[in-house]
Amino acid sequence: MIVRYGILMTKSPRIPKATIKRLSLYSRQLELLEFDGYRMVSSEKMAWLCQVNPTLVRKDLGYFGEFGVRGVGYNVRDLLNQIKRILAVNRTWNVGLIGIGHLGMALLRRREFPARGYNLVSVFDSDPHKIGTILASGLRVNDIKDLEKTVQEMKIGIGIIATPDDQAQTVADRLIDCGVRAILNVSKSDIPSPQGCMVENVDFSIRLGVLTYRLKDELGL
Amino acid sequence: MIVRYGILMTKSPRIPKATIKRLSLYSRQLELLEFDGYRMVSSEKMAWLCQVNPTLVRKDLGYFGEFGVRGVGYNVRDLLNQIKRILAVNRTWNVGLIGIGHLGMALLRRREFPARGYNLVSVFDSDPHKIGTILASGLRVNDIKDLEKTVQEMKIGIGIIATPDDQAQTVADRLIDCGVRAILNVSKSDIPSPQGCMVENVDFSIRLGVLTYRLKDELGL
Repeated sequence: MIVRYGILMTKSPRIPKATIKRLSLYSRQLELLEFDGYRMVSSEKMAWLCQVNPTLVRKDLGYFGEFGVRGVGYNVRDLLNQIKRILAVNRTWNVGLIGIGHLGMALLRRREFPARGYNLVSVFDSDPHKIGTILASGLRVNDIKDLEKTVQEMKIGIGIIATPDDQAQTVADRLIDCGVRAILNVSKSDIPSPQGCMVENVDFSIRLGVLTYRLKDELGL
Repeated sequence: MIVRYGILMTKSPRIPKATIKRLSLYSRQLELLEFDGYRMVSSEKMAWLCQVNPTLVRKDLGYFGEFGVRGVGYNVRDLLNQIKRILAVNRTWNVGLIGIGHLGMALLRRREFPARGYNLVSVFDSDPHKIGTILASGLRVNDIKDLEKTVQEMKIGIGIIATPDDQAQTVADRLIDCGVRAILNVSKSDIPSPQGCMVENVDFSIRLGVLTYRLKDELGL
């Protein structure tokens, strides 16, 4: 069942999305600290590395229980493992990419995806010139017609939509109908989150809007 | 002066970033309503179109003064103009794009940028095979060596960084040194916001982390 424009109700505790996003930032810095051989880190140092307020670091981590030791800080490896568990990136996810245009190709080359447990296992396109070709990563471009079959076979849990604007919603509907519960949409159209599926829309114009809003104040416009 | 990892202090009133982002969503829906000939819109309808709570719509718009009329709603054109003024997209901004890889090419083709007042006036790359070529948009690819000169000449106010990961920070430093106050970073590295410059980092992994965090709860992992 697809409820368009419905407000998504999740069963998870109400942890702010901003906190979830910062956990990814924390985990990246913790990985670097671990690589450099640090065993402990204070909330002040974490805050400095991530450009946020130390109180915010403590508040964010407080949502998930008591990690740190007062006056000593956090154990780098333990905290990293805890955050990976919270974000569910301590396991791998099979990801399907739909649309092999410039944006799709750019995403395919991101080495941080496999490093973070997001395995791009299938790519799809509707262009007959692209279907069947083998990409640099070794993946073969599948016909979008076979989307449903391949999603089942490859146990794809996350779909990334990088199609032209006018195909995004149709592709989202098909993904949802065959059981995909999480979609990252980088095509221009906003895709609403129907019940039972989560959609993250990446919108570059919105981010430019954040910049110009603040620039206006800076420049006194 | 570049203060790395410094916490950016803005002089603007503390309006949540989430509100600023939603204003972009509201403006898109208002444009569609205006195109369809609607004169008025209720906060309930706006909320439904944008998939947010009606109370939130009223709260967001409340930060900027009294727009609506109780029981009647908002005048579509007036509200759109007000939001454009707030986001400072009632004027045009000259934007420079650095890095003509797949991601840069994808951004160049986004038709919504000029429609929203973001004019891509210059593109830069360091690859000798790309420098001097003319893109489909008619723009000539500039040598990154000429960045400073071109930023001044073309009055570039916003820089978009789409370079390989290891060049992003150097390019950001050069943009900031020649007076660019706003940067959209779509390359993999996080660029900290130094004092006097705003940086928006678009990070696809962070968005995937938001999805897997919620998926984990959904799937009971």
